[in-house]
Amino acid sequence: MKKHNFSAGPCVLPQEVFQEASQAILDFNNTGLSILEISHRSGAFVSVMEEARHLALELLGLENQGYNAIFLQGGASMQFLMTAYNLLQDKAAYLNTGTWSSKAIKEARLFGEAVEVASSKDKNFNYIPKDYKIPQDINYFHCTSNNTIFGTQMKDFPSVDVPLVCDMSSDIFSRELNFSKFDLIYAGAQKNMGPAGATLVIVKEDILGKVKREIPSMMDYRVHIEKDSMFNTPPVYAIYVSLLTLRWIKDKGGIKAMEELNNKKAALLYNEIDRNPLFKGFAATEDRSTMNPTFNLTDESKKEKFDSMWKDANINGLSGHRSVGGYRASMYNALSLESVQVLVDVMQKLEKEA
Amino acid sequence: MKKHNFSAGPCVLPQEVFQEASQAILDFNNTGLSILEISHRSGAFVSVMEEARHLALELLGLENQGYNAIFLQGGASMQFLMTAYNLLQDKAAYLNTGTWSSKAIKEARLFGEAVEVASSKDKNFNYIPKDYKIPQDINYFHCTSNNTIFGTQMKDFPSVDVPLVCDMSSDIFSRELNFSKFDLIYAGAQKNMGPAGATLVIVKEDILGKVKREIPSMMDYRVHIEKDSMFNTPPVYAIYVSLLTLRWIKDKGGIKAMEELNNKKAALLYNEIDRNPLFKGFAATEDRSTMNPTFNLTDESKKEKFDSMWKDANINGLSGHRSVGGYRASMYNALSLESVQVLVDVMQKLEKEA
Repeated sequence: MKKHNFSAGPCVLPQEVFQEASQAILDFNNTGLSILEISHRSGAFVSVMEEARHLALELLGLENQGYNAIFLQGGASMQFLMTAYNLLQDKAAYLNTGTWSSKAIKEARLFGEAVEVASSKDKNFNYIPKDYKIPQDINYFHCTSNNTIFGTQMKDFPSVDVPLVCDMSSDIFSRELNFSKFDLIYAGAQKNMGPAGATLVIVKEDILGKVKREIPSMMDYRVHIEKDSMFNTPPVYAIYVSLLTLRWIKDKGGIKAMEELNNKKAALLYNEIDRNPLFKGFAATEDRSTMNPTFNLTDESKKEKFDSMWKDANINGLSGHRSVGGYRASMYNALSLESVQVLVDVMQKLEKEA
Repeated sequence: MKKHNFSAGPCVLPQEVFQEASQAILDFNNTGLSILEISHRSGAFVSVMEEARHLALELLGLENQGYNAIFLQGGASMQFLMTAYNLLQDKAAYLNTGTWSSKAIKEARLFGEAVEVASSKDKNFNYIPKDYKIPQDINYFHCTSNNTIFGTQMKDFPSVDVPLVCDMSSDIFSRELNFSKFDLIYAGAQKNMGPAGATLVIVKEDILGKVKREIPSMMDYRVHIEKDSMFNTPPVYAIYVSLLTLRWIKDKGGIKAMEELNNKKAALLYNEIDRNPLFKGFAATEDRSTMNPTFNLTDESKKEKFDSMWKDANINGLSGHRSVGGYRASMYNALSLESVQVLVDVMQKLEKEA
């Protein structure tokens, strides 16, 4: 019996994707070869790569606007480094909304000045700072759209005259935004897009080539763009499964349809968190993430009972991150409304039996 | 019908591995979850990582000797950069035996002096230079054990008083060596170890921490060792399939058994290349790779016929790299002797019909 998988990432992907991804290990598109043994230079895989790159731009509405999509490795952690390597000449500004922003700032400081324009660290990152001032003399502004660990999400993004760089690892393809506002978007695949092992980078080409330092080949976005994301052997399977997931998003109605479902799931769970006296939400109401609702018990003595109840209901991955405690219900695109209902039912059952 | 897959990498893996790898996409070890959706922090995956790291050391005979095994991303191309970041303070020496060595030298030169002690570029890298002198005042010596593109392989490694660093991407786990001679071994998984998307690094810990520069977190071997190869989300599936392949190697008798079979396959094919007047080998006889025999037709007018014959025989991936032309029969651990016999039969049939 399948579980209701609320893992924070790697996370649930569509069942149809698992089926096709499993079959391709045995025989990829009737080639007589496993997807794991085909050459990345084969026509079969070059098509996968091209379709995935194109579909990412298409779903974001960024075709023919000077953007390029490349698939790299190393996750967002590698992008903390690569963004600075490619863009930070003197000074950049960062909004610090949690663990991932903090790590991005740390890496950037090896390359130049990284100004923290605001931070929500004072309240354990349970809100998104607003009304901060962004300096003018910066190479770029960096923010994190969704904070997986703390369950906050930026609803608005500042308008800046410099390149806008955003780590969208945990909410890309989950909601409609004016993506053309951004100059560089990066995302580890392992939330809404695919399995761990691939990283999508969407970059407006005209922001590149401005720094004076020599950039190592593997760190240089221009090298990867020039080689059509095949400078070296790409993570073939992770990109293939990402393509299957991107196709699924498109088939289901694109980002608009994902957002509608994600809003329904978020409303269902947050309503219960707010209604049920046994629970309280962690994040500030206006900054709540639709992807990773975080919540705690109002009475910690109920923990053992609640934990055994949700586990009995076949729910997986609900424990909160150690930085927050309590619970985190990650509800990425592929998590069904039914799975959220199962969780809400358990929360209500706990209340009745309390 | 399965093909005889002579691809240079990604390449054939054992059929048993494909079966288990396919099943785990649907349900991993009866967890009710796909291997693609489990948390990398789950007990189930932490066990995979630990077993893979341990088994890599065990197979190489490097347990309890100060070595650590970590799984990273980015392939050998990222290691060209990381080795220099971590080890190159002033000067290092490189043996240039082909495309990959050349790329390693290029990246190292961003960090310090990289002396090329010898090169076989004068003969399109068809041999391994010998009798070169290695300077004393270097931070490390770097070499490439097997040259996938040119089909040469180092049979002996120099004894040096500095750390010995080796790119073993295309022949690790294929032959017995005194691996304790090396201080750092790296290998992209996608030849003898698994699918594209994981990189194995075996490093003797006492060579680290000697350079003065600040190393970005993702580039720092010590960070990855400290975090048990889980500093950030690892490429879960590529590591899992690598583990399945490492288990297969152990079950079949370890590296010794792999080497015996690889020697048989190499003897079978090279004997035919030398015997058949229609073919000639590319690499110098004493430096021939057991992994990637390269050969050409003596009469190019036979090309069309030979190409259609091997394709009809269900052979895949035999075309040579553009730098060499002709043919390359990559024969990694999982390629069977029967597949090599099919190729030899086609070569003999071509001779008879010529």
